Order: sequence, then C-alpha cells, then structure tokens
Amino acid sequence: MAPPLTYIPANDRGLAYGDGVFETLRLSASGAPLRALHKERMRQGAARLSIPFDGETFDRYLDALIEETVEGANGASSAAAQQSGVAKIILTRGSGGRGYAAPAAMSPRWITQRFPFVSRPARQRDDGLALGLCREPVADLPSLAGLKHLNRLDQVLAQQQVSAAGWDEGMLLDQRGRPLELTSMNLFFRFANELFTPDLRSAGVAGVARAWCLQHASSHGVTCRQQNVSLSRLREADEVFACNSVAGILPVRKLALWQWPVGKLARSLQREFDALFV
Amino acid sequence: MAPPLTYIPANDRGLAYGDGVFETLRLSASGAPLRALHKERMRQGAARLSIPFDGETFDRYLDALIEETVEGANGASSAAAQQSGVAKIILTRGSGGRGYAAPAAMSPRWITQRFPFVSRPARQRDDGLALGLCREPVADLPSLAGLKHLNRLDQVLAQQQVSAAGWDEGMLLDQRGRPLELTSMNLFFRFANELFTPDLRSAGVAGVARAWCLQHASSHGVTCRQQNVSLSRLREADEVFACNSVAGILPVRKLALWQWPVGKLARSLQREFDALFV
Repeated sequence: MAPPLTYIPANDRGLAYGDGVFETLRLSASGAPLRALHKERMRQGAARLSIPFDGETFDRYLDALIEETVEGANGASSAAAQQSGVAKIILTRGSGGRGYAAPAAMSPRWITQRFPFVSRPARQRDDGLALGLCREPVADLPSLAGLKHLNRLDQVLAQQQVSAAGWDEGMLLDQRGRPLELTSMNLFFRFANELFTPDLRSAGVAGVARAWCLQHASSHGVTCRQQNVSLSRLREADEVFACNSVAGILPVRKLALWQWPVGKLARSLQREFDALFV
Repeated sequence: MAPPLTYIPANDRGLAYGDGVFETLRLSASGAPLRALHKERMRQGAARLSIPFDGETFDRYLDALIEETVEGANGASSAAAQQSGVAKIILTRGSGGRGYAAPAAMSPRWITQRFPFVSRPARQRDDGLALGLCREPVADLPSLAGLKHLNRLDQVLAQQQVSAAGWDEGMLLDQRGRPLELTSMNLFFRFANELFTPDLRSAGVAGVARAWCLQHASSHGVTCRQQNVSLSRLREADEVFACNSVAGILPVRKLALWQWPVGKLARSLQREFDALFV
C-alpha cells in the first residue's frame, strides 16, 4: 500500500474529468461503523465506471485513517478528535489515456484524507432543517444515477444558491418537478405508516445513511418504499426528514412556507444512528 | 506567477467536485493562434461558476507553455515538437470550503500541462470519420451548458462505448433525440447553402473550433444557424463535418448505415484552419 497522498499528479483523471468515486465516512472510537455500506457503494460505483476496485486496499486505507492522529488547530492531538473524525477516500481511474479514453493499462489511484468531525448545529438537529427550493432541476442521467462520483458541479452550483439564501439545505427536484434529494442529504417522507424516499434510478446520490434508514425503518413499524412523490403531496406528509452519513438524521422543519412537526420516527432513527458513533 | 504544478494538493476542489474549467490549445511556431477564443471561453466559464478569472495570468501561463521545450521520448527536444505542442490550462476554485460550499476566501488554482501534438490519422482527415450512435442521451443542464468544465464523466462513459465499438467518434443525442455533438467534437450539417450546428444552450460543449467555423463559414457563401436538426433530417444533409480545436475540421463519412460525401465546405475550412498552425 502506497502512503497517503498529500499531493496528486496534475494529470490524474479525477482532476481532468472527475473520473472516479469517493466516500466520506464518519469515524467513531471503535472504527467506521458504516464501513460495509460505504465499501459496497464504492464497489458498485467503481464497477459502473469500469474502474478496478480492491476491497482489501479500501480496508487498509480506511484502517490507516482510523489509526491516524488528528492534529488540532494548535498542533496538539486529542483523544476526542481521534474518536470523531471524518475519513474521505477517493478512487480515481489514475493518470493517462488519450483524451476521454482510458489508458490500456489502468492504474487506479487511492487518495485519502482525514478531517475533524463537525456536528450540525443543535438547532438543525433538534428543531429541524429550514429548506429552500433550488432553481435548477437535477438532470436525468441513468448511467451515473445513485453514484457518489466526482462530477459534483450541480451540487456546487445549488450550494451557491443555498448559501446566498441562508437556507440550511436546498431541495433539488427531478426533471418532472418531484423532490429528489437535498444539496447534500437524502430525503424521507412519512405518510401514516408508509415511509417514502425518492427512487434514484434516474438521478441523485444514493447515500449510505439512506441505505441504513431503509434497513432500519421497518423495525419502527413503517413500510418503506423507494418511490417518487409529487411536491404538492409532500405538503401533506406527517413528517419529513433528511440524512447523510456524516450529519446523521435531521428532521425537516420547513420548506419555504410549508411546515412539518418534528416526527417521532425521525427522532428515533436519529438517536439510533447517533448511537453507532458513541 | 507560481511555477507550473506537476502535483496538486489532494484537497483541490477540481479533484473533489470537478469544480473548475479547462482549455486545450493547439500551439504553432508563432504561438497559440486561437488564444483569444480560448481565453474568452475560459473567462465565460469561470464567470458562470463564479470563479475569479484573471486574463493576464492566463496569458502568462500560456506564454510559459509556448516557450517550454517539449522533450521527446528519448529525452531530446526537437524544434518540430516545440512548434506543434498542445497546451492544457486548468483553472479550479482551489482548495478548501466545507463540503460543496466554496471557502469564503477563494484562491483559484492554475494547473498547466504541455503535450506533444498528435495528428488524427490521414484516413479520418481525408476520407472522414465513421461514427456510431451513443446509447445515452446528454442530460439538459442549462446552467452548465456550453462550458468546458471538469465534469466530464458523460464523455468518459460515451468514449468507452466508442472504443469498444471501434468508431472514430460517437454521436451524442440531446434529450429530444436530436444530434447534439460528438464525443470530443462539435457538429456541422450543410443543406444547400445553409449550415447548421446544434444549439448548445441546454447541453453540450461549445468548442473553440465551432466558434471559429461560425466566424468563417459565411465567407464561403453559406448562412450559419445555431439550430437543432432532427436525426432523420440529418440523413438528407449535403455534407456533415465535425471539429475541435486540436483535431481541426474533419469530414463525417458515415453514421451507422448512413453515408455522406466529403464536402467542399469541410475541405476548404479544414485547409484554412490547418493553415493557422503552420
């Protein structure tokens, strides 16, 4: 295993074309609780892009990040920081090739980084997110849908709108005007005992926390469906929540003028998810 | 001006999100004949992404690439290589920020590379390109349409199909099934004395050679329109050609079973374009 790269060759295809996939994993004292889900998503993404993926290398890089001491701003390390980092693992197709064509002998490149964990503000976690509606719908691109790939300009542009408007997150619609996801989170809507999350086979990022919710929600007495719901129907939801693997599960409090109460399901799943990282 | 980077920091947003734009310029003994068009496109792309663009810095990096000696495979430089390189200039939003949000103090990063120029095979230049039809239509994304940005996974995937099928280039259709562009080139269709090139306000890359053709075709007695044409109508074109700023102008000979003759307009524009680089 090569040592982690602080610098990468300027001819890497990850830079040139966004030709790669990445995972951002929240760490705990005991390691990376959602390792299996992250690893499986990266394996699937790499397969869709035809980039060779080696699960043992993924594990070795992740283990090295888990063991790494996070240095604080003052250069000192702390046990707390060590136990609550965020690991980022990028896998690119490597260097070379002629234009868009990959080189005959592909040499994928692993790039790892570790960041301190920063919790979402208590207001967002307790009272929920205030959302706005992003201007541009997400394009349908079935061959890339669901993947956590390195082409994220849509999100960067949407985030500019979110930051300018002061929203907590932006809601992104699909080509038919239905809620698809948030700028950096997946969405869930509960109507009585049915829980919906948008179908991501045409567009969107299929998050690891979304996969976790789909696995765990049924133990709370709801039936889960991956199905798109119209924006107008969303208004009638009993509760709305959002998730990603670093922020965890956050209730959604409002979208423009619509409001929802913080639901019991969101609160239960939030506690259960957070407990993974204690 | 910082010296050219062989390595870039692994936290560059160009790698993380494809958050940047690039230009690939063919060089000649006298410099970069299409400098003004490339510079203007990069300026517009950076503006659309809200990345500060400094035209003087662009010029200084390009001048350095023009003066750089290209080393051959045996380590020796040659005057010919020096006069026929390809310069690549990438401008990213730089490092930092929290997730998709850009850092408050943005520090854009310039990355430059120089490659030897490799001409397209004489068969493609003389007899024309053999095209196939790519499987997946290009998504509409008005906010990014036309830009030469770093999110190019669509093209990478399309190129995999092209390489597997052995085509010279792949034809990409828009969401309504109309010809949009080729994998790495723009398209022109002549019907009598009307020349069409697809409108790129919803999707596609607006190439510098396309801009050059739009400026110069009228002197050959044709009227130019940026307008989409149905795939079935394309079959009736008197000639079809494609262009990019490195390959120049190439006739299109066939698409699957449809064939076109090499047209006089394509041949004239090809000669005129090539003469820029002598």
